[in-house]
Amino acid sequence: MDARTQERPFHRDLNELKLNLLKMATLAEKAVEDSITSLVKRDAALAAKIIAGDETVNQLELAIDDQCLRLLALQQPMARDLRFITSAMKINYDLERIADQAVNIAERAEELAKRPTISCCLDLPAMAEMTYGMILKSIDAFVNQDAKLAEEVCRKDDEVDELNEVILRQVLDFMATHTPAIRRAIHYIIIARCLERVADHCTNIAENVVYIVEGRIIKHGGFSREGLR
Amino acid sequence: MDARTQERPFHRDLNELKLNLLKMATLAEKAVEDSITSLVKRDAALAAKIIAGDETVNQLELAIDDQCLRLLALQQPMARDLRFITSAMKINYDLERIADQAVNIAERAEELAKRPTISCCLDLPAMAEMTYGMILKSIDAFVNQDAKLAEEVCRKDDEVDELNEVILRQVLDFMATHTPAIRRAIHYIIIARCLERVADHCTNIAENVVYIVEGRIIKHGGFSREGLR
Repeated sequence: MDARTQERPFHRDLNELKLNLLKMATLAEKAVEDSITSLVKRDAALAAKIIAGDETVNQLELAIDDQCLRLLALQQPMARDLRFITSAMKINYDLERIADQAVNIAERAEELAKRPTISCCLDLPAMAEMTYGMILKSIDAFVNQDAKLAEEVCRKDDEVDELNEVILRQVLDFMATHTPAIRRAIHYIIIARCLERVADHCTNIAENVVYIVEGRIIKHGGFSREGLR
Repeated sequence: MDARTQERPFHRDLNELKLNLLKMATLAEKAVEDSITSLVKRDAALAAKIIAGDETVNQLELAIDDQCLRLLALQQPMARDLRFITSAMKINYDLERIADQAVNIAERAEELAKRPTISCCLDLPAMAEMTYGMILKSIDAFVNQDAKLAEEVCRKDDEVDELNEVILRQVLDFMATHTPAIRRAIHYIIIARCLERVADHCTNIAENVVYIVEGRIIKHGGFSREGLR
């Protein structure tokens, strides 16, 4: 054991990793929430702030990834700790992607703020609220290693998908009768898809939590070794 | 060293991992190519085959992930080998996501095959060709550990993004003059976005290759430790 590992016990390193992922999740959740606020309030300045802020998230992603690699190299963890660290790498990746979706939404909010307002999809704020809850719950589940809460997140994903379909129909109906507004309306379809992707990433995170806690793979309906044949 | 590691030298395990990722990439590339064929030829049976075939890809993803974890646990690799295995986990994830995009496209192809044909986006096949090339090149770069080829893939991503914009404009122009076909036309916008995501995943893979080979992070314009502060 070298001086470094003596100085910093493994559980302290894991705790620091957990705190960094929590920081990452907080940034990602705030970005998504702000992106919807910038859209609803037609606040181009807020949208620009989200886009600029993505660099912080990107750097944090790289730093967490580096931290995971150092833990794998220096501590050579086994069993649950190994699952924890490799899952942390994936969760980190998903959180960065959630923040990317916020940037996509903010770019569209910036564009839409310049144009006359349209009211084409009434259920978008409800869909957005649902996804904020999923981000927070999936990270709660991760921090508290709560598999039950994680499974709740996975179930919520279906509701988000349904609401996405509802919004698609709302926007299509709007387009059919408001041809000059088609270019603006399309942004809302894409924003709803961005939120749907946020929910997908939350589901990935939640699946990883179940895997860390129970060593059980729930995605793709579980694991068989058939795939390697 | 236990009997198992004596029996199976590390380089042989790594080679098997490489072969499995190659198999995964081949399946993903074929799924995307077939999904566009099913769309262009209005072949609902082919689309259904792609959707059913996704289960094989999912199982292979889980199996490769399991293989990576076993390598980390049993071999406790360092430096380049450690980067290789953790990157393999991420590449695996991206390949599964590429196949998911093929399923999305196939679902839309199935739907469109039932409805009268429309010609709204002339550049979609060109965009599709570009992404097939990116999948194959990113995996070539991985198998041959070719950082130069990987960087070529990253540059190609901008061309795909530009073509996506062109297609969006083509479909919007079409919609403005073909109101009854709006519901069908929207599928093409989403299909183009699926292809754009395929290209994004290829870029991720290519970035991982540069990282394995050179230990250099090129995504997000590189890494600084600022993120952890």
